Amino acid sequence: MQKIITLTTDHKNGLYDITNEVVSIVRLSKVKTGIVSVYARGSTAAIMIQENWDQSVQNDVITLLRNMIPSGVWEHDHQDNNGDAHLKAGLVGPSESIPIIDYNTGLSTWQNIFFCEFDGPREKREVVITIIEDH
Amino acid sequence: MQKIITLTTDHKNGLYDITNEVVSIVRLSKVKTGIVSVYARGSTAAIMIQENWDQSVQNDVITLLRNMIPSGVWEHDHQDNNGDAHLKAGLVGPSESIPIIDYNTGLSTWQNIFFCEFDGPREKREVVITIIEDH
Amino acid sequence: MQKIITLTTDHKNGLYDITNEVVSIVRLSKVKTGIVSVYARGSTAAIMIQENWDQSVQNDVITLLRNMIPSGVWEHDHQDNNGDAHLKAGLVGPSESIPIIDYNTGLSTWQNIFFCEFDGPREKREVVITIIEDH
Repeated sequence: MQKIITLTTDHKNGLYDITNEVVSIVRLSKVKTGIVSVYARGSTAAIMIQENWDQSVQNDVITLLRNMIPSGVWEHDHQDNNGDAHLKAGLVGPSESIPIIDYNTGLSTWQNIFFCEFDGPREKREVVITIIEDH
Repeated sequence: MQKIITLTTDHKNGLYDITNEVVSIVRLSKVKTGIVSVYARGSTAAIMIQENWDQSVQNDVITLLRNMIPSGVWEHDHQDNNGDAHLKAGLVGPSESIPIIDYNTGLSTWQNIFFCEFDGPREKREVVITIIEDH
Repeated sequence: MQKIITLTTDHKNGLYDITNEVVSIVRLSKVKTGIVSVYARGSTAAIMIQENWDQSVQNDVITLLRNMIPSGVWEHDHQDNNGDAHLKAGLVGPSESIPIIDYNTGLSTWQNIFFCEFDGPREKREVVITIIEDH
Protein backbone atom coordinates (compact mmCIF):
# COMPACT_ATOMS: atom_id res chain seq x y z
CA MET A 1 0.00 0.00 0.00
CA GLN A 2 1.15 3.50 -0.75
CA LYS A 3 -0.36 6.80 0.37
CA ILE A 4 0.71 10.42 0.05
CA ILE A 5 0.45 12.74 3.04
CA THR A 6 0.15 16.42 2.13
CA LEU A 7 0.91 19.29 4.44
CA THR A 8 1.19 23.07 4.50
CA THR A 9 4.19 24.71 6.16
CA ASP A 10 4.11 28.15 7.73
CA HIS A 11 7.76 28.93 8.51
CA LYS A 12 11.03 29.16 6.58
CA ASN A 13 12.46 26.41 8.82
CA GLY A 14 10.21 24.13 10.83
CA LEU A 15 9.60 20.57 11.98
CA TYR A 16 6.09 19.13 11.50
CA ASP A 17 5.04 15.98 13.34
CA ILE A 18 3.44 13.46 10.95
CA THR A 19 3.52 10.45 13.29
CA ASN A 20 -0.27 10.12 13.62
CA GLU A 21 -0.77 10.13 9.85
CA VAL A 22 1.90 7.44 9.38
CA VAL A 23 0.47 5.27 12.16
CA SER A 24 -3.02 5.53 10.60
CA ILE A 25 -1.70 4.29 7.25
CA VAL A 26 0.15 1.39 8.91
CA ARG A 27 -3.05 0.34 10.69
CA LEU A 28 -5.08 0.68 7.51
CA SER A 29 -2.67 -1.63 5.66
CA LYS A 30 -3.32 -4.52 8.08
CA VAL A 31 0.32 -5.57 7.69
CA LYS A 32 1.51 -7.30 10.87
CA THR A 33 5.28 -7.25 10.32
CA GLY A 34 7.38 -5.28 7.83
CA ILE A 35 8.63 -1.76 7.27
CA VAL A 36 7.04 1.57 6.51
CA SER A 37 9.11 3.75 4.20
CA VAL A 38 8.67 7.50 4.73
CA TYR A 39 9.93 9.78 1.94
CA ALA A 40 9.86 13.58 1.66
CA ARG A 41 9.47 14.91 -1.87
CA GLY A 42 11.29 18.19 -2.52
CA SER A 43 15.02 18.90 -2.45
CA THR A 44 14.71 21.45 0.38
CA ALA A 45 12.88 19.14 2.80
CA ALA A 46 13.75 16.03 4.81
CA ILE A 47 12.53 13.45 7.33
CA MET A 48 13.92 13.28 10.87
CA ILE A 49 13.04 10.93 13.72
CA GLN A 50 13.11 13.00 16.89
CA GLU A 51 11.55 13.50 20.31
CA ASN A 52 8.31 15.48 20.61
CA TRP A 53 7.79 15.89 24.34
CA ASP A 54 7.62 19.62 23.74
CA GLN A 55 8.92 22.17 21.22
CA SER A 56 12.46 22.35 22.65
CA VAL A 57 14.23 19.69 20.61
CA GLN A 58 12.56 20.92 17.41
CA ASN A 59 13.85 24.42 18.11
CA ASP A 60 17.30 23.02 18.86
CA VAL A 61 17.36 21.15 15.53
CA ILE A 62 16.72 24.42 13.68
CA THR A 63 19.34 26.28 15.74
CA LEU A 64 21.93 23.56 15.17
CA LEU A 65 21.40 23.44 11.41
CA ARG A 66 21.48 27.27 11.17
CA ASN A 67 24.81 27.31 13.00
CA MET A 68 26.28 24.44 10.94
CA ILE A 69 24.92 25.66 7.60
CA PRO A 70 24.58 29.47 7.56
CA SER A 71 22.52 31.12 4.84
CA GLY A 72 23.83 33.47 2.15
CA VAL A 73 27.35 32.08 1.70
CA TRP A 74 26.84 29.38 -0.96
CA GLU A 75 27.53 29.20 -4.69
CA HIS A 76 23.91 28.15 -5.25
CA ASP A 77 22.70 31.38 -3.59
CA HIS A 78 23.49 33.26 -6.81
CA GLN A 79 20.53 31.39 -8.34
CA ASP A 80 17.82 30.74 -5.78
CA ASN A 81 19.20 32.18 -2.56
CA ASN A 82 18.34 28.90 -0.84
CA GLY A 83 21.67 27.07 -0.86
CA ASP A 84 21.43 26.43 2.87
CA ALA A 85 18.03 24.74 2.44
CA HIS A 86 19.42 22.25 -0.09
CA LEU A 87 22.40 21.46 2.12
CA LYS A 88 20.26 20.89 5.21
CA ALA A 89 17.93 18.64 3.21
CA GLY A 90 20.80 16.62 1.75
CA LEU A 91 22.48 16.11 5.12
CA VAL A 92 19.36 15.11 7.05
CA GLY A 93 18.06 13.06 4.13
CA PRO A 94 14.55 12.49 2.72
CA SER A 95 14.05 8.82 3.68
CA GLU A 96 13.60 6.80 6.85
CA SER A 97 12.45 3.17 7.10
CA ILE A 98 10.63 2.28 10.31
CA PRO A 99 9.77 -1.27 11.30
CA ILE A 100 6.16 -2.41 11.52
CA ILE A 101 5.72 -4.54 14.64
CA ASP A 102 2.37 -6.20 15.40
CA TYR A 103 0.25 -3.92 13.16
CA ASN A 104 1.87 -0.72 14.51
CA THR A 105 5.05 1.28 13.97
CA GLY A 106 8.07 0.15 15.97
CA LEU A 107 8.82 3.69 17.16
CA SER A 108 10.01 3.88 20.76
CA THR A 109 8.19 6.04 23.32
CA TRP A 110 10.08 9.23 22.46
CA GLN A 111 10.51 8.74 18.73
CA ASN A 112 8.26 10.78 16.47
CA ILE A 113 8.39 11.26 12.71
CA PHE A 114 8.96 14.83 11.55
CA PHE A 115 8.75 16.46 8.15
CA CYS A 116 11.54 19.07 8.08
CA GLU A 117 10.85 22.24 6.10
CA PHE A 118 13.96 24.22 5.18
CA ASP A 119 12.57 26.58 2.52
CA GLY A 120 9.04 27.46 3.54
CA PRO A 121 6.41 28.52 3.86
CA ARG A 122 4.91 26.20 1.23
CA GLU A 123 1.28 25.61 0.46
CA LYS A 124 1.73 21.93 -0.40
CA ARG A 125 4.43 19.49 0.60
CA GLU A 126 4.21 15.75 -0.03
CA VAL A 127 5.43 12.75 1.97
CA VAL A 128 5.16 9.32 0.35
CA ILE A 129 4.33 6.42 2.71
CA THR A 130 4.95 2.91 1.37
CA ILE A 131 4.08 -0.25 3.29
CA ILE A 132 6.27 -3.30 2.75
CA GLU A 133 5.61 -6.72 4.26
CA ASP A 134 8.50 -8.80 5.59
CA HIS A 135 9.50 -12.21 4.37
CA MET B 1 11.33 -12.22 9.38
CA GLN B 2 11.89 -9.75 12.16
CA LYS B 3 14.18 -10.02 15.17
CA ILE B 4 15.19 -7.64 17.92
CA ILE B 5 18.83 -7.36 18.97
CA THR B 6 19.34 -6.13 22.53
CA LEU B 7 22.53 -4.64 23.87
CA THR B 8 23.97 -2.96 26.95
CA THR B 9 26.03 0.22 26.60
CA ASP B 10 28.77 1.24 29.00
CA HIS B 11 29.67 4.80 27.96
CA LYS B 12 27.86 8.11 27.52
CA ASN B 13 28.90 8.12 23.84
CA GLY B 14 29.99 4.95 22.08
CA LEU B 15 29.76 2.91 18.90
CA TYR B 16 28.90 -0.79 19.22
CA ASP B 17 29.47 -3.17 16.31
CA ILE B 18 26.36 -5.29 15.63
CA THR B 19 27.42 -6.65 12.23
CA ASN B 20 27.71 -10.28 13.34
CA GLU B 21 24.25 -10.28 14.86
CA VAL B 22 22.73 -8.79 11.68
CA VAL B 23 24.56 -11.27 9.43
CA SER B 24 23.31 -14.17 11.57
CA ILE B 25 19.71 -13.03 11.17
CA VAL B 26 20.11 -12.62 7.40
CA ARG B 27 21.47 -16.18 7.14
CA LEU B 28 18.70 -17.53 9.33
CA SER B 29 16.05 -15.97 7.07
CA LYS B 30 17.27 -17.95 4.04
CA VAL B 31 16.42 -14.95 1.84
CA LYS B 32 18.70 -14.91 -1.21
CA THR B 33 18.10 -11.35 -2.46
CA GLY B 34 16.45 -8.38 -0.76
CA ILE B 35 17.18 -5.84 1.94
CA VAL B 36 17.75 -5.94 5.67
CA SER B 37 16.35 -2.94 7.51
CA VAL B 38 18.24 -1.98 10.68
CA TYR B 39 16.45 0.37 13.08
CA ALA B 40 17.59 1.76 16.45
CA ARG B 41 14.82 2.33 18.95
CA GLY B 42 15.36 5.33 21.27
CA SER B 43 15.60 9.01 20.38
CA THR B 44 19.17 9.34 21.68
CA ALA B 45 20.62 6.50 19.59
CA ALA B 46 21.32 5.88 15.90
CA ILE B 47 22.74 3.49 13.31
CA MET B 48 25.93 4.27 11.37
CA ILE B 49 27.73 2.23 8.73
CA GLN B 50 31.44 2.68 9.35
CA GLU B 51 34.87 1.03 9.20
CA ASN B 52 35.96 -1.24 12.05
CA TRP B 53 39.59 -2.03 11.30
CA ASP B 54 40.42 -0.70 14.75
CA GLN B 55 38.97 1.77 17.29
CA SER B 56 40.26 4.91 15.55
CA VAL B 57 37.32 5.78 13.30
CA GLN B 58 34.86 5.10 16.11
CA ASN B 59 36.78 7.53 18.34
CA ASP B 60 36.85 10.06 15.53
CA VAL B 61 33.06 9.83 15.08
CA ILE B 62 32.56 10.68 18.76
CA THR B 63 35.08 13.54 18.59
CA LEU B 64 33.48 14.98 15.45
CA LEU B 65 29.96 14.89 16.87
CA ARG B 66 31.14 16.43 20.17
CA ASN B 67 32.76 19.28 18.24
CA MET B 68 29.75 19.80 15.97
CA ILE B 69 27.14 19.43 18.71
CA PRO B 70 28.51 20.55 22.09
CA SER B 71 26.64 19.61 25.27
CA GLY B 72 24.98 22.01 27.67
CA VAL B 73 23.94 24.78 25.27
CA TRP B 74 20.49 23.63 24.10
CA GLU B 75 16.95 24.65 24.98
CA HIS B 76 16.14 20.99 25.71
CA ASP B 77 18.90 20.89 28.36
CA HIS B 78 16.55 22.71 30.76
CA GLN B 79 14.53 19.48 30.87
CA ASP B 80 16.74 16.44 30.49
CA ASN B 81 20.25 17.85 30.06
CA ASN B 82 20.66 15.63 27.01
CA GLY B 83 19.87 17.99 24.13
CA ASP B 84 23.13 17.09 22.40
CA ALA B 85 22.21 13.38 22.44
CA HIS B 86 18.90 14.03 20.67
CA LEU B 87 20.56 16.20 18.04
CA LYS B 88 23.31 13.64 17.33
CA ALA B 89 20.67 10.91 17.04
CA GLY B 90 18.50 12.95 14.69
CA LEU B 91 21.38 13.90 12.42
CA VAL B 92 22.91 10.42 12.13
CA GLY B 93 19.46 8.81 11.92
CA PRO B 94 18.05 5.55 13.29
CA SER B 95 17.60 3.57 10.05
CA GLU B 96 19.82 2.01 7.39
CA SER B 97 18.74 -0.44 4.68
CA ILE B 98 21.45 -2.84 3.52
CA PRO B 99 21.10 -5.10 0.49
CA ILE B 100 20.98 -8.87 0.88
CA ILE B 101 23.11 -10.45 -1.84
CA ASP B 102 23.30 -14.23 -2.19
CA TYR B 103 22.11 -15.05 1.36
CA ASN B 104 24.52 -12.53 2.96
CA THR B 105 24.65 -8.79 3.60
CA GLY B 106 26.00 -6.69 0.75
CA LEU B 107 28.39 -4.80 3.04
CA SER B 108 31.78 -4.05 1.46
CA THR B 109 35.00 -5.22 3.13
CA TRP B 110 35.34 -2.20 5.40
CA GLN B 111 31.67 -1.54 6.11
CA ASN B 112 30.38 -2.55 9.52
CA ILE B 113 27.06 -1.79 11.19
CA PHE B 114 27.27 0.21 14.41
CA PHE B 115 24.71 1.04 17.06
CA CYS B 116 25.53 4.60 18.20
CA GLU B 117 24.87 5.40 21.87
CA PHE B 118 24.67 9.12 22.65
CA ASP B 119 23.10 9.04 26.13
CA GLY B 120 24.48 6.03 27.92
CA PRO B 121 25.24 3.95 29.73
CA ARG B 122 21.99 2.04 29.27
CA GLU B 123 21.14 -1.43 30.49
CA LYS B 124 18.97 -2.29 27.49
CA ARG B 125 18.94 -0.86 23.99
CA GLU B 126 16.98 -2.40 21.12
CA VAL B 127 17.69 -2.65 17.39
CA VAL B 128 14.93 -4.00 15.15
CA ILE B 129 16.09 -6.13 12.21
CA THR B 130 13.53 -6.72 9.44
CA ILE B 131 14.18 -8.96 6.42
CA ILE B 132 12.49 -8.02 3.13
CA GLU B 133 12.66 -10.11 -0.03
CA ASP B 134 13.06 -8.40 -3.41
CA HIS B 135 10.63 -8.62 -6.27
CA MET C 1 15.24 -7.55 -8.77
CA GLN C 2 18.71 -6.44 -7.85
CA LYS C 3 21.34 -4.81 -10.05
CA ILE C 4 24.75 -3.31 -9.36
CA ILE C 5 25.71 0.03 -10.93
CA THR C 6 29.46 0.52 -11.33
CA LEU C 7 31.17 3.85 -11.78
CA THR C 8 34.61 5.42 -12.01
CA THR C 9 35.39 8.55 -9.99
CA ASP C 10 37.93 11.16 -11.04
CA HIS C 11 38.23 13.46 -8.03
CA LYS C 12 39.10 13.10 -4.33
CA ASN C 13 35.66 14.50 -3.46
CA GLY C 14 32.83 14.51 -5.96
CA LEU C 15 29.11 13.92 -6.49
CA TYR C 16 28.08 11.69 -9.42
CA ASP C 17 24.49 11.67 -10.65
CA ILE C 18 23.16 8.10 -11.00
CA THR C 19 19.47 8.98 -11.38
CA ASN C 20 19.15 7.76 -14.97
CA GLU C 21 20.65 4.37 -14.13
CA VAL C 22 18.30 3.93 -11.16
CA VAL C 23 15.24 4.96 -13.20
CA SER C 24 16.20 2.43 -15.91
CA ILE C 25 16.35 -0.39 -13.38
CA VAL C 26 12.99 0.60 -11.87
CA ARG C 27 11.39 0.55 -15.35
CA LEU C 28 13.03 -2.78 -16.16
CA SER C 29 11.57 -4.34 -13.00
CA LYS C 30 7.98 -3.60 -14.09
CA VAL C 31 7.06 -2.99 -10.44
CA LYS C 32 4.18 -0.51 -10.26
CA THR C 33 4.36 0.43 -6.54
CA GLY C 34 7.07 -0.18 -3.98
CA ILE C 35 10.50 1.14 -3.05
CA VAL C 36 13.91 1.16 -4.67
CA SER C 37 16.76 0.79 -2.20
CA VAL C 38 20.01 2.50 -3.24
CA TYR C 39 23.16 1.45 -1.37
CA ALA C 40 26.77 2.62 -1.81
CA ARG C 41 29.39 -0.02 -1.10
CA GLY C 42 32.62 1.34 0.41
CA SER C 43 33.14 3.04 3.77
CA THR C 44 34.36 6.30 2.18
CA ALA C 45 31.34 6.80 -0.08
CA ALA C 46 27.67 7.65 0.40
CA ILE C 47 24.34 8.38 -1.28
CA MET C 48 22.74 11.83 -1.20
CA ILE C 49 19.47 13.04 -2.73
CA GLN C 50 20.13 16.53 -4.03
CA GLU C 51 19.27 19.07 -6.73
CA ASN C 52 21.06 18.87 -10.09
CA TRP C 53 19.97 22.00 -11.94
CA ASP C 54 23.66 22.83 -12.33
CA GLN C 55 26.96 22.13 -10.53
CA SER C 56 26.46 24.71 -7.78
CA VAL C 57 24.76 22.62 -5.10
CA GLN C 58 27.20 19.77 -5.68
CA ASN C 59 30.12 22.15 -5.15
CA ASP C 60 28.43 23.53 -2.04
CA VAL C 61 28.04 20.01 -0.60
CA ILE C 62 31.77 19.44 -0.94
CA THR C 63 32.60 22.84 0.55
CA LEU C 64 30.25 22.30 3.50
CA LEU C 65 31.65 18.87 4.32
CA ARG C 66 35.25 20.13 4.02
CA ASN C 67 34.47 22.93 6.47
CA MET C 68 32.62 20.63 8.89
CA ILE C 69 35.10 17.77 8.66
CA PRO C 70 38.61 19.04 7.89
CA SER C 71 41.26 16.59 6.72
CA GLY C 72 44.43 15.68 8.58
CA VAL C 73 43.25 16.06 12.17
CA TRP C 74 41.84 12.61 12.96
CA GLU C 75 43.14 9.62 14.92
CA HIS C 76 42.49 7.41 11.89
CA ASP C 77 44.83 9.58 9.78
CA HIS C 78 47.81 7.83 11.42
CA GLN C 79 46.78 4.74 9.43
CA ASP C 80 45.24 5.69 6.10
CA ASN C 81 45.25 9.49 6.07
CA ASN C 82 41.59 9.39 5.07
CA GLY C 83 39.82 9.91 8.40
CA ASP C 84 37.77 12.77 6.95
CA ALA C 85 36.48 10.51 4.15
CA HIS C 86 35.16 7.92 6.63
CA LEU C 87 33.47 10.59 8.74
CA LYS C 88 31.79 12.23 5.72
CA ALA C 89 30.58 8.82 4.54
CA GLY C 90 29.22 7.88 7.96
CA LEU C 91 27.38 11.16 8.42
CA VAL C 92 25.77 11.28 4.96
CA GLY C 93 25.10 7.53 5.02
CA PRO C 94 25.20 4.85 2.32
CA SER C 95 21.48 4.08 1.96
CA GLU C 96 18.37 5.85 0.68
CA SER C 97 14.99 4.27 -0.03
CA ILE C 98 12.96 5.99 -2.74
CA PRO C 99 9.31 5.18 -3.46
CA ILE C 100 8.30 3.60 -6.75
CA ILE C 101 5.11 5.29 -7.98
CA ASP C 102 3.39 4.09 -11.15
CA TYR C 103 6.42 2.25 -12.62
CA ASN C 104 8.78 5.21 -11.99
CA THR C 105 10.75 6.67 -9.09
CA GLY C 106 8.83 9.05 -6.84
CA LEU C 107 11.59 11.67 -6.97
CA SER C 108 10.31 15.25 -7.14
CA THR C 109 11.33 17.58 -10.00
CA TRP C 110 14.54 18.75 -8.32
CA GLN C 111 15.56 15.54 -6.57
CA ASN C 112 18.38 13.56 -8.11
CA ILE C 113 20.31 10.60 -6.74
CA PHE C 114 24.03 11.16 -6.25
CA PHE C 115 26.87 8.81 -5.45
CA CYS C 116 29.23 10.76 -3.15
CA GLU C 117 32.93 10.02 -3.49
CA PHE C 118 35.03 11.14 -0.53
CA ASP C 119 38.28 9.25 -1.18
CA GLY C 120 38.81 9.16 -4.92
CA PRO C 121 39.72 8.85 -7.61
CA ARG C 122 38.66 5.20 -7.78
CA GLU C 123 38.53 2.96 -10.82
CA LYS C 124 35.49 1.02 -9.65
CA ARG C 125 32.76 1.95 -7.19
CA GLU C 126 29.59 -0.08 -6.73
CA VAL C 127 26.01 0.93 -5.93
CA VAL C 128 23.51 -1.84 -5.20
CA ILE C 129 19.94 -1.22 -6.44
CA THR C 130 17.23 -3.46 -4.98
CA ILE C 131 13.59 -3.34 -6.08
CA ILE C 132 10.94 -4.14 -3.47
CA GLU C 133 7.23 -4.39 -4.21
CA ASP C 134 4.73 -2.98 -1.73
CA HIS C 135 2.04 -4.93 0.04
